[in-house]
Amino acid sequence: MRAAMADAEVGDDVYGDDPTVKALERATAELLGKEDAVYMPTGTMTNQVGIRAHTEPGDAVLFDQNAHVYILEGGAPCAISGVLPRLLPGVRGIFSPSDVEAAVGTSHPFFPATIPAPVKLLCLENTHNIGGGSIWPLERLRAVTATGRRLGLALHLDGARLWHATAATGISEAEYAAPFDSVSVCFSKALGAPVGSCLAGSRDFIARARRFKQQIGGGFRQAGIIAAGALHALTHHRQRLGEVNALASRFARDLAQIDRIILDPATVETNIVRFQLRDVESASFVEEAHQRGLYMLPSGPHAVRAVFYLDITWDEARRALAIIADILGADILRALPAHAAAGPSAAAAATY
Amino acid sequence: MRAAMADAEVGDDVYGDDPTVKALERATAELLGKEDAVYMPTGTMTNQVGIRAHTEPGDAVLFDQNAHVYILEGGAPCAISGVLPRLLPGVRGIFSPSDVEAAVGTSHPFFPATIPAPVKLLCLENTHNIGGGSIWPLERLRAVTATGRRLGLALHLDGARLWHATAATGISEAEYAAPFDSVSVCFSKALGAPVGSCLAGSRDFIARARRFKQQIGGGFRQAGIIAAGALHALTHHRQRLGEVNALASRFARDLAQIDRIILDPATVETNIVRFQLRDVESASFVEEAHQRGLYMLPSGPHAVRAVFYLDITWDEARRALAIIADILGADILRALPAHAAAGPSAAAAATY
Amino acid sequence: MRAAMADAEVGDDVYGDDPTVKALERATAELLGKEDAVYMPTGTMTNQVGIRAHTEPGDAVLFDQNAHVYILEGGAPCAISGVLPRLLPGVRGIFSPSDVEAAVGTSHPFFPATIPAPVKLLCLENTHNIGGGSIWPLERLRAVTATGRRLGLALHLDGARLWHATAATGISEAEYAAPFDSVSVCFSKALGAPVGSCLAGSRDFIARARRFKQQIGGGFRQAGIIAAGALHALTHHRQRLGEVNALASRFARDLAQIDRIILDPATVETNIVRFQLRDVESASFVEEAHQRGLYMLPSGPHAVRAVFYLDITWDEARRALAIIADILGADILRALPAHAAAGPSAAAAATY
Amino acid sequence: MRAAMADAEVGDDVYGDDPTVKALERATAELLGKEDAVYMPTGTMTNQVGIRAHTEPGDAVLFDQNAHVYILEGGAPCAISGVLPRLLPGVRGIFSPSDVEAAVGTSHPFFPATIPAPVKLLCLENTHNIGGGSIWPLERLRAVTATGRRLGLALHLDGARLWHATAATGISEAEYAAPFDSVSVCFSKALGAPVGSCLAGSRDFIARARRFKQQIGGGFRQAGIIAAGALHALTHHRQRLGEVNALASRFARDLAQIDRIILDPATVETNIVRFQLRDVESASFVEEAHQRGLYMLPSGPHAVRAVFYLDITWDEARRALAIIADILGADILRALPAHAAAGPSAAAAATY
Repeated sequence: MRAAMADAEVGDDVYGDDPTVKALERATAELLGKEDAVYMPTGTMTNQVGIRAHTEPGDAVLFDQNAHVYILEGGAPCAISGVLPRLLPGVRGIFSPSDVEAAVGTSHPFFPATIPAPVKLLCLENTHNIGGGSIWPLERLRAVTATGRRLGLALHLDGARLWHATAATGISEAEYAAPFDSVSVCFSKALGAPVGSCLAGSRDFIARARRFKQQIGGGFRQAGIIAAGALHALTHHRQRLGEVNALASRFARDLAQIDRIILDPATVETNIVRFQLRDVESASFVEEAHQRGLYMLPSGPHAVRAVFYLDITWDEARRALAIIADILGADILRALPAHAAAGPSAAAAATY
Repeated sequence: MRAAMADAEVGDDVYGDDPTVKALERATAELLGKEDAVYMPTGTMTNQVGIRAHTEPGDAVLFDQNAHVYILEGGAPCAISGVLPRLLPGVRGIFSPSDVEAAVGTSHPFFPATIPAPVKLLCLENTHNIGGGSIWPLERLRAVTATGRRLGLALHLDGARLWHATAATGISEAEYAAPFDSVSVCFSKALGAPVGSCLAGSRDFIARARRFKQQIGGGFRQAGIIAAGALHALTHHRQRLGEVNALASRFARDLAQIDRIILDPATVETNIVRFQLRDVESASFVEEAHQRGLYMLPSGPHAVRAVFYLDITWDEARRALAIIADILGADILRALPAHAAAGPSAAAAATY
Repeated sequence: MRAAMADAEVGDDVYGDDPTVKALERATAELLGKEDAVYMPTGTMTNQVGIRAHTEPGDAVLFDQNAHVYILEGGAPCAISGVLPRLLPGVRGIFSPSDVEAAVGTSHPFFPATIPAPVKLLCLENTHNIGGGSIWPLERLRAVTATGRRLGLALHLDGARLWHATAATGISEAEYAAPFDSVSVCFSKALGAPVGSCLAGSRDFIARARRFKQQIGGGFRQAGIIAAGALHALTHHRQRLGEVNALASRFARDLAQIDRIILDPATVETNIVRFQLRDVESASFVEEAHQRGLYMLPSGPHAVRAVFYLDITWDEARRALAIIADILGADILRALPAHAAAGPSAAAAATY
Repeated sequence: MRAAMADAEVGDDVYGDDPTVKALERATAELLGKEDAVYMPTGTMTNQVGIRAHTEPGDAVLFDQNAHVYILEGGAPCAISGVLPRLLPGVRGIFSPSDVEAAVGTSHPFFPATIPAPVKLLCLENTHNIGGGSIWPLERLRAVTATGRRLGLALHLDGARLWHATAATGISEAEYAAPFDSVSVCFSKALGAPVGSCLAGSRDFIARARRFKQQIGGGFRQAGIIAAGALHALTHHRQRLGEVNALASRFARDLAQIDRIILDPATVETNIVRFQLRDVESASFVEEAHQRGLYMLPSGPHAVRAVFYLDITWDEARRALAIIADILGADILRALPAHAAAGPSAAAAATY
């Protein structure tokens, strides 16, 4: 990938002149079955520009209560787009058509239409980050988006981790993306490129998005350098994500055996392993793991989140298990040979 | 009241020259135990200017999930102030200190402080409109605000209906207002003045609020005319709200007897009666009542909201009961003499 | 007027139920030749809601460099609507078609359309406040708006003082308003009603404006009380504004005779007299006048602004002249009999 | 540079973990004499985050009338920060202390402080892009910033092209930056790195800026790849900008000899050559040059902007002159040998 980046042909992206950026945008649009796509520095930007381009201030937007765009993007839906988040009671990020209907509500001739914020946009996240990498069942996804469509809502998919859903189910990204007006995907995180995300949609929508990309400070110049990394990841890493999912799954099965770990391995559908600690605070547990070279994030008072990516081997995963078991005083994994391995053992990285 | 308004001494409020407005502001500040207050055209404006003056875009604000400022003010917290609403799971609008703690969460050295929106403000509503006029128990209110204070949050009270809490409990408005940095109160609605609300707080806070009042279009001119009505209501109507509460309570007890009405009369603490219909849609029920001269609002697929104010008599309340019973085919109230009364019988008005 | 207000029939304006408000809105729409109108508490609100309803954040809006909406409304076009002001070099608020063309500029295939903010709206002010009550010549107004239309811009008229233009020229308000998509007019200020303004336009535009009125905190309740005053002013005061203009004109001719006053009386077209002081600071001059009961405002280091309204008599105007002459040590008006008159002499009020 | 980028050590910048990004931030802060700096994808983002961090919506900000942040950043000061631009009448971007004083104005006890937007921030641009790469004389810059400071304003420097000022005058970047609270500098454009800018200031200010960087979508991940290019440019290209300035100067002297070119070579102080065409439209002229392989931008109906950067040789500059002369039918350069040279002749690139 570094070689591809060092050799990338570049131009000025603000002027639409960077051939590598254009190639990446074309490839992404094609993969998602959309007319066009636009490359931006971050997934936060692709999501927020998507929301911005669909709405105006004072519109209401439906999010799962734990959506990344709502919880983990610095308040941007409100600070940047001025929209009112209305929250859906998803379970691991998955909600139902009736949740959407209830949130939109019904208008009534006696009640002034000017009082509530009008709902304009429905956002889904697949796979769902805080939900632990959960995958939207295709039928549910279709039912929910059909309901949104019937209620006149625009539809946005936060697909930062969409590749993992495809790797796990064999359902193509384009199939998942089909019901949506706009889809964001991310090339860093598990896909392994250093920088950047794409927002895809109709030609008109993407033209509008380019305006907000520039306004929000996303008009980078010779972005072909990093776009080359993203193109490389798309071509060479994407099809290997099944291995990452498998590794996470195997890790989860073993992890669930450890005392004080509360985890149903069936909930590990992709590369994120989210588990609870019994009577242990996640903050000090993660701190302890960190000092032993294992990086995870607390995601609640007793919840921990471990994320797998391409470079992690099963050997490293086993060392991670050993570290966790050791901290928690578990016996079950004492016999593992890798346990005694010295040296740095940075294993499961934990990044949102 | 109309005479008071016709005789009001006025000036230009933008220049701080209107003596009646100034008298109203002084009286309100005193009543709430705050240094200063500012008069504005609406309760939405006093709440939204309060939020604006406490925050900057991208800050998170804690609201009850059914707070008026969140649900019924046109998306203004996000459109005007750009804040991110974080929602608390109140029961009839009343939440607990641990809800506040959970929503603020804990920072962690491994997790970038830049990712979540920082929580800056906690809003309460007393009495709670969508909660059915529910009153915050003083001890609960003190515990929740103490928690907010400890977590470094600013505190705002939406006291549009605070007068009703005082009328019901005998706890003064100033006692309820004491823990808060800012308090909004409303002179229209049940208090019966035609127009206007006040926002109260420290001298510095109110000076800052005056800037946003002007910016948002609240700098009315010879507002003394309507301020006179508000002053009159404060002086002559406020102490009579106990009667309104009592009427609502009596109405609720009888209403609960009607078939197909689901209502626990104990939940009617002030002037709002919120009830459910068994197997009847609220929209058509309210429509039917409307045609018979009884004004109520649907507040859910099967929920209805009736609001009492000063001018309603027990006789009118009985006619309202009769209309409802008649629509629902109930026998229980058939004997009521007022039932047969002809003519317009506008009884319980329903306004948010 | 006070009697009309005391007798006003009212309802809840948020519910579209206030008959006096509805009558005022109909009368205003008819007078301006528009389909519909909406009543709001202030002129700032009607202007800012107008701008909001025509634009989205990041759009550019053309204002005269001294437009009231740009200079004197608390930064609201940017704070509330997020638009970028592009300024036109008006002379006393009057600019030309070529100024509009230059500000819109020309797009160019090599220059990314995403970089500049797209111009969407052109605002005019007639009469122009900071311009000293200057009137737009009808032909110029038509040429400028035709240019704006050709360039695809929406057109908004800040007509807070439009009545004065009509009183001075005999050209109807509807004729002035014809080229515009939206027009704001004000009932307080010279017209003499205590509170309120209207925004007029097409039925669809006003429906959209009602949403932002509510969101911004303009949804007052029993506003019929003050709408009655506005209706009264429209019916009984409007046709008398010619007298006010004439008084200001006569005052200006005499004022121009005073030493140290720099004023071309021909620039006094309506009820505002804006003059310069030679070698005298306006701040201390206005302070001194204030102490003698004459209210004016400084509008620059050496500039002063005096405003006439219905209740001012020629006798009071003469007293004002005498006070000014006395402060400036002028001989010319020493002989005026009214000069020695005792008692309160509040004469020309000065409010923006 | 590409080698440096291919070898860059990286980490996750959102977590503050990318060593190359940190090295770039340290180097930039040191160079500018500030406590800290933060790396972002674009110059628009560093400027807009700077404005955001200094203000809140409704504040007024002073810009030169042709400032890049005002004219060429998509309306972002208003769309993102909600500030009101107040414009200074700079000549080639350079204004005076009295311009600042006049724009801030004086408050007056009779005039409500709530009506105008309070001025909070003064922005300068050095060198000034639309001004043709003009350099602020140090004494003027100090006088203007001292006035701003005395008036209580925060001070921001758009130093995207600051390197060129230093290259031309020998005055260090730190000296130019000293009076300011915040400074943005750009590594792409003339410095030649592919992507990115830094914002520098006090430790507290930069901590605050990091929050808005993340919120606005600037939290890129393994940004070390491109930061390595920026570091390389800072170390190896910065001191060579004097050559670029000299080339532009020499080009300008010859260009001024061409018929139909209006240009005072003394106005070419750095790497931008901005000239006027006599009786020729810039759009068609630039189009014609483009077809011959010479890239420039129109910057007005008859104005053209040519920009020099490191990779341009004198030979290419001469070819550019020949192309221009040929298009304009000038005789003066007919004798130039390079005129007939075949092959690609991409010469002066023109980018904002």
